[in-house]
Amino acid sequence: MSMYSDNSEHIHREIVTDLAPIDAEAVAALRTAAPLDELIALVAGTFHVLGDPTRLKILYLLLNRPCCVRDLAILVGVSESAISHQMRLLKDRQLVKTRREGTTIYYSLADHHLAPLFREAESHADHVYHNLPDHP
Amino acid sequence: MSMYSDNSEHIHREIVTDLAPIDAEAVAALRTAAPLDELIALVAGTFHVLGDPTRLKILYLLLNRPCCVRDLAILVGVSESAISHQMRLLKDRQLVKTRREGTTIYYSLADHHLAPLFREAESHADHVYHNLPDHP
Repeated sequence: MSMYSDNSEHIHREIVTDLAPIDAEAVAALRTAAPLDELIALVAGTFHVLGDPTRLKILYLLLNRPCCVRDLAILVGVSESAISHQMRLLKDRQLVKTRREGTTIYYSLADHHLAPLFREAESHADHVYHNLPDHP
Repeated sequence: MSMYSDNSEHIHREIVTDLAPIDAEAVAALRTAAPLDELIALVAGTFHVLGDPTRLKILYLLLNRPCCVRDLAILVGVSESAISHQMRLLKDRQLVKTRREGTTIYYSLADHHLAPLFREAESHADHVYHNLPDHP
């Protein structure tokens, strides 16, 4: 990913301390590997949107099949206007896309990276839930 | 995952409206497929922790190799006490684990689900960044 390249200056700019490194080689290696703030901001922004239980529930439902605002309102147990509000936010973040069928607008997940994203987060949550050790 | 099973009562409890479904079959199917609030809360909690740029930057660095508080402070450009605070939070969420080497404590990613989680989130962010359409 091009957002990784040529960021040594960017990382250097951020050093606000004059601490001596414990492992100078690790610090040098990680400076090259560090992602740009731009990428961090985008990814953190996506995680932030996914960090809301109502939005996450909507996305989990859409993992299974496309759904309209009315049916999502019934399933999530909130008003249609509350769902519409969340759908606008999810659409702005490009997490969902729309398809019109007659007078009904169906929402579905916007890209195929979201299903594995949820699966991995769920596997992590499952480890936490059952307090399991990591496995290979 | 067992957290999915036997949740029809749970979903039913949440219906606060008496809206008529647009697609009754979809609503019935999605009621069975909906995850439990417990799972949603755990996964949303994980995403919420990942939604902070400083914490996410620390985790991205740890994707590459284990690192101690001092070296993370140098790389992220904040104080050691700020890093220690975030590490406690990340450890509580079981996102990082520790290993002592002499007097130094090294942090690393807690489970192998986190690397693919970041990769998928990054691929999604990359789509958004470059405004690309979804690909198969």
